[in-house]
Amino acid sequence: MSAEAVSLETKDRQNQPSLEPILSLTAPSMEAVNSVILERMQSEIPLIPALAGHLISGGGKRMRPMLTLAGAELVGYKGDHHYKLAAAVEFLHTATLLHDDVVDGSETRRGKKAANIVYGNPATVLVGDFLFARAFELMVDADNLRALKVLSDASVVIAQGEVDQLTAQRKIETSQDHYLHIIGAKTAALFAAASRISAVIAERSAEEEKALDDYGRNLGIAFQLVDDAIDYDSERAEMGKDQGDDFREGKMTLPVILAYAKGSAEERKFWQEAIAGFRNEDEDLAYAIELIHQHDTVAATREKALEFAEKACDALSIFPDSEARAAMVEAAQFAVSRLY
Amino acid sequence: MSAEAVSLETKDRQNQPSLEPILSLTAPSMEAVNSVILERMQSEIPLIPALAGHLISGGGKRMRPMLTLAGAELVGYKGDHHYKLAAAVEFLHTATLLHDDVVDGSETRRGKKAANIVYGNPATVLVGDFLFARAFELMVDADNLRALKVLSDASVVIAQGEVDQLTAQRKIETSQDHYLHIIGAKTAALFAAASRISAVIAERSAEEEKALDDYGRNLGIAFQLVDDAIDYDSERAEMGKDQGDDFREGKMTLPVILAYAKGSAEERKFWQEAIAGFRNEDEDLAYAIELIHQHDTVAATREKALEFAEKACDALSIFPDSEARAAMVEAAQFAVSRLY
Repeated sequence: MSAEAVSLETKDRQNQPSLEPILSLTAPSMEAVNSVILERMQSEIPLIPALAGHLISGGGKRMRPMLTLAGAELVGYKGDHHYKLAAAVEFLHTATLLHDDVVDGSETRRGKKAANIVYGNPATVLVGDFLFARAFELMVDADNLRALKVLSDASVVIAQGEVDQLTAQRKIETSQDHYLHIIGAKTAALFAAASRISAVIAERSAEEEKALDDYGRNLGIAFQLVDDAIDYDSERAEMGKDQGDDFREGKMTLPVILAYAKGSAEERKFWQEAIAGFRNEDEDLAYAIELIHQHDTVAATREKALEFAEKACDALSIFPDSEARAAMVEAAQFAVSRLY
Repeated sequence: MSAEAVSLETKDRQNQPSLEPILSLTAPSMEAVNSVILERMQSEIPLIPALAGHLISGGGKRMRPMLTLAGAELVGYKGDHHYKLAAAVEFLHTATLLHDDVVDGSETRRGKKAANIVYGNPATVLVGDFLFARAFELMVDADNLRALKVLSDASVVIAQGEVDQLTAQRKIETSQDHYLHIIGAKTAALFAAASRISAVIAERSAEEEKALDDYGRNLGIAFQLVDDAIDYDSERAEMGKDQGDDFREGKMTLPVILAYAKGSAEERKFWQEAIAGFRNEDEDLAYAIELIHQHDTVAATREKALEFAEKACDALSIFPDSEARAAMVEAAQFAVSRLY
């Protein structure tokens, strides 16, 4: 099947793409992963499952472990090591979220009070460390040194991406390339690794490993672009995070980078002040959303996300048609559809 | 050689035990470890080596990697995987220190401003994460799944110990057993793992692995007991940490647990208020030190440390006499001598 045939353009707008196929495909194995997650977040120290559970049972999409499970279906993996690895991937992600919320001073996460607000920064930092350590313990249990290498390398890249993002915060001069580099590290590296390890444990060819890595990486970038666009979408309220968080934190995301580039002198002055932290009011956010609407940069961000989602789908074209491939393609289409 | 012969009692007070022999023993290999540390703390993000270097080049004793190197000498390991593992151990330790300083709001570390004061909490949390990730990357490079298991299990125990300590903070009712459990996890688990992995990579017997684990674990407890005693020693000023930090943070350490147990009703009232955080002044610390001096609980803590140091030495008695063994025994003697 050609790359064309799995392109996003085949899906019409009436028939909205959904996560349903990938959810169904991975439902039985996700149950096994959820058991591992539940079992391994336990500890003799009651605060650990309480705090970890606050976030983990808070209704995340489990997108990253789902990639490992879908990839395992795609390549016909027959073992059971992917359950532990997928749980490890979710723990790595959860640890990062906990630390992100401390770093950003977030007040809400997944529609409820953030862990740092409920339990305080010290406990949130330390339980994040626990989940990070547990993730590696699970990887060791999965008994595959190459999968461990993929995931430990990804962890380093993620941490670098987080520091890079922190360094770029409140810097109006952040370029589109720098931004794409940051999200490639902080978000897409884990999507790529989660997807790749399915081919690693199934001992498939380097070509298939790379295809799954490309799929996950491009999907991760598309996902993050859409998340960042939603924060300024005039027709959307929250979608997992509170609208306006990026604005108030002075994060340079693509809708802002593009609006700043297209802005009048006066508008650029507004952006400079806002990103520097001197325009924090609700009316400032409203004005930012209005400027972004005027310059149509949510749409431009969506177009960019579409490019990456298409690359994700293209990467899968080396695999024969299958239920798994179709579900993974539709997941990529869904990633972008969240903005329509 | 019997356990007797390696006992602490053989060393007389005039001839103070020193770290010199273990430092000499491990000097050549520590140079290789330092190269790995320096190389692997680099990153394309300049803030990472700046912040990590602030602590790493701040003159720590490198006690934990030294245990891996000394153990490798003891068992006659001939490869070079211990350099990476020892560097990983130091990175794990450094990551923990960075997060500890954020959690405690520490102002100084190793005689200079703590990283969280210089670079802020967000960067300190994230660079800690980077070092933690790098540690696992290094372990993977060392290519030994069993060593990875020992160190990842230890990381989980350490994180649990940190949360346990946080939970016990400001709780006057913390028992001696609970305290020993906490330091066994937060401190001694890494000493044990650092020491054990030398036997793991050298593929020595389970008995030798356990002996090295016992050595490290008991040494770690002795070290922490002495550190905690120094914080209240009337004849000592700082020794790596500012005197009075534990007091002001409401940490229940052995000198306090014992002084509280022996105290009059009035003294117990003082301790309750102090540990709860209502007596933070310099005069309160002075009174705490006076009470601890009266009840001689620094000496009692030292006696306890001596017990553990002796157990550490005893554990090594299964190995034939050697320069390495003598150096490791003297390191344990040194651990306790810091309080004389």
